Amino acid sequence: MKIIVGGADLSNAVMKVSKAISVRTTNEILEGIKLSVKGDNLTLIATDMEIAIEKTVMCDTYVEGDALIPGKIFTEFSKKLENEDQVEIETEENGRIKITYGSSEVKFAALPVDEFPVVKKDLRDKTFSILQKDLKEIVGRTVFCCSTNESRPILKGCLFEVTGDILTAVGIDGVRLAMAKKKIKSASGDFKVIIPARALGEITRLLEKDEEEITFVSENNSLMLEVDGTVFITRLLEGNYMNYKQLIPTEFVTTVRVGRTSLLNSLERALVVAKENNNLVKLDIKENCITVFANTESGNVNESVTVNFEGKDMSIAFNSKFLCDALKAVGDEFVNMYFINNISPLIIKPYSGEEYLYLILPMKINSQV
Amino acid sequence: MKIIVGGADLSNAVMKVSKAISVRTTNEILEGIKLSVKGDNLTLIATDMEIAIEKTVMCDTYVEGDALIPGKIFTEFSKKLENEDQVEIETEENGRIKITYGSSEVKFAALPVDEFPVVKKDLRDKTFSILQKDLKEIVGRTVFCCSTNESRPILKGCLFEVTGDILTAVGIDGVRLAMAKKKIKSASGDFKVIIPARALGEITRLLEKDEEEITFVSENNSLMLEVDGTVFITRLLEGNYMNYKQLIPTEFVTTVRVGRTSLLNSLERALVVAKENNNLVKLDIKENCITVFANTESGNVNESVTVNFEGKDMSIAFNSKFLCDALKAVGDEFVNMYFINNISPLIIKPYSGEEYLYLILPMKINSQV
Repeated sequence: MKIIVGGADLSNAVMKVSKAISVRTTNEILEGIKLSVKGDNLTLIATDMEIAIEKTVMCDTYVEGDALIPGKIFTEFSKKLENEDQVEIETEENGRIKITYGSSEVKFAALPVDEFPVVKKDLRDKTFSILQKDLKEIVGRTVFCCSTNESRPILKGCLFEVTGDILTAVGIDGVRLAMAKKKIKSASGDFKVIIPARALGEITRLLEKDEEEITFVSENNSLMLEVDGTVFITRLLEGNYMNYKQLIPTEFVTTVRVGRTSLLNSLERALVVAKENNNLVKLDIKENCITVFANTESGNVNESVTVNFEGKDMSIAFNSKFLCDALKAVGDEFVNMYFINNISPLIIKPYSGEEYLYLILPMKINSQV
Repeated sequence: MKIIVGGADLSNAVMKVSKAISVRTTNEILEGIKLSVKGDNLTLIATDMEIAIEKTVMCDTYVEGDALIPGKIFTEFSKKLENEDQVEIETEENGRIKITYGSSEVKFAALPVDEFPVVKKDLRDKTFSILQKDLKEIVGRTVFCCSTNESRPILKGCLFEVTGDILTAVGIDGVRLAMAKKKIKSASGDFKVIIPARALGEITRLLEKDEEEITFVSENNSLMLEVDGTVFITRLLEGNYMNYKQLIPTEFVTTVRVGRTSLLNSLERALVVAKENNNLVKLDIKENCITVFANTESGNVNESVTVNFEGKDMSIAFNSKFLCDALKAVGDEFVNMYFINNISPLIIKPYSGEEYLYLILPMKINSQV
C-alpha cells in the first residue's frame, strides 16, 4: 500500500481506534492497528476481541493494500503528526512501514497482517435509535452499578431492554441496583442485550453531538453502532440476566423527601471520617430530620438534614459512598427515599418522574456506631 | 479556644497551609495543623521542618488559645465546609476539637499542641523584591534542572544570587545546567542563597498576581516570603554551590540558529522511538540542516530540520528528553546552539537576549545509531 493522508485526519482516526488496542495480551497481533486501503479510503481498525473500533478517512491512493502496525507506538507517534499537511504511508518489501512527512521519515516493523482477526460488522438483526444525550444520561446513571467481580460475569454488563418506545437500562452489583428509563426515537421491535460496562464507557466517549440520534444494531452476540464515521462493535454478554424486577420491593414503611444536595453534602463529610470503617454511616430517621452518624478513630460526625417524613422512625446503616453515588446519579432537586426496615433494601427515586430508581442494601449496624 | 470563622476562609486557609504537612514522617506532631487564636485572628500553620506555611484569617473570637488538629483529615473535611457561612471551632476539655456548622458537628482528637515546633519567621537580614511573573519565569526555566539525587544534596536546590539589580538563578544536575537572569525591583544588597527545589515549586503555586511584587527575606539558613497574607518559610541548603561559571565554555566551533518549535517537534517524535534506548538521539549537523536520528527495535526516525549554520560539520548524541526540556524553557521563536565537539557541552540560548542559558553534556555515540 502507498497513500497520502492529512496529518490531522490520521492522528484523529488513530486516537479513536487506539481505544480498542489490547493492553493485557501476549498476542502481539491484537496490539496492532490494521490499515486497509481501498479506493480513496484508508480504514483503520483495532480489536482486543471484546470490542473493535474502526474509522475510515479519505486519502490519496497510489497502491491499495493492507498493513498491520504496532498500535501503541503508532498512536503516540501519530499524535505528533497532527500539524503535518501531508503524511505518506508506504509498505516496504523488507516488512517495514515507512511514514514520510515534510523532509522527515520514520519506519516501523510491520506485524503479519494476515493474522489479524476478521471483525464481523454487517449486523442487521435488531435495531433501535436514541438521542445521544439520552444515551449518555442513561449510561451515566446505571453503568457505575455494574459488578467488577468475576464471580458473576453477567453482572459486568448493563441490561439494555427496549419495550415499546422505552429503553430500560439496569446495572447490578451484589449490593445495589440502578435502573434508568428513556424514550427512544425508533426501534425494529423489542430488543434485549447485555452490554459490557467497559464497552458502554468507550461508547459514551464517542458521543459528541447531543441532539443527534445513534442507532444500536445487534445480531447474535454482537452489537454495532456508528458515531460520526466511527464504527464501534462489541461482543455482548451471554446468559440470563437477573430477574431484577422481583428484587424491587413495592411496599414501604417509611417515606422521606429530602433536598438532594444537602443530604449529599452531609454524606460526603461523613465519608471523610467513615472511610476507615468500610464507609459505614448510620442514619437515624425521625420526624423532620435525618441524622447522619460516622464514628471512627479519626473523628465523630453528627449531621442533621431536614426532611419531609411519613411513617415509622428508623435506624439504618449504609455504605456512604454508595448512597453518594445514588444522589449524584439522581440529579433532581429533591429525592424520595423509601424504607422498609434496617435489613431490607432502600429505594431512592427522583421527586419528579419515574425515569430513575436506585436500590441499595443496608449494612449491618455495628454496635459501636 | 472558641471562634466562629467563615467556611470559605477556613477552607482556603487550610488548603494553603496543608502543603507543608509532613507526609513521610513517624512524628504525628508534624502531621498536624496548628490553630492559634489571638484577638480577631485565627492563624493556621503547618511545617515538615523543611518548609512551613502560615495563613491568618479574620474570626469572631470567644476564647483565645491554641490547638493542634490532625492535618490530613482536617484538610479533607474543610474542603466540604466551604459553602458554610459560619463554622464554629471549639476545644473541649476531653482533648477533642469540636467543629459545628449549621445544625451538624464533627469532633476530632486533638494532638498535643505544646509539642509543635516553633517556626522562626521574623527574619530581617537580607531582602530583595521581584515581580511575581518574573519569579515564575525564572523558576520555571531552572528548577527542572535541579538534581533529585541524594549524592550531592546541595544540587537539590537552585542557586539564587542577586548582584546589583539582577537576579541569577541556577539549577544543575550531573548532566545539564540551566541559568536564568531577571531584573529585580529592589534589594538590600547582594544576596546569595540555595533554595530547595521543592520549596520553589510550592512558592510558585502561591503566585497569583503577575504584576505584584514579592519580597524574599533571608536570615542565616532560613528564607521567608509573603504572598497575599500567606507566609512561606523554608530552610535553605547549606554549603558551597558549584562554581558554575567555570563550567560554561565560551569558545565554540559550530554555531547553529534554528526554529525552536520545528526542532522541538522533531525531537519529540524521535523521543517516541528513542525511549527504549535511554532517550538517545543522534544529531548530524551540516550546512543548513540538522538531521535527528533515533534507531531502536521499535522503529527508525530520521528527521530533517533546516538551520542557519556556521562552523564545522558535527555528529553528536544527546538525551532527547533533556534537549526537549531546554527548548521548552527557552521560549523564543529561534534559538542559538553552540557546539565544540561531540564530548563537550552544548550551549543553548534564546536568539534574542541573554536572559537564559542551558548547558547539556552529550551522550556517548552508540555504534548502532
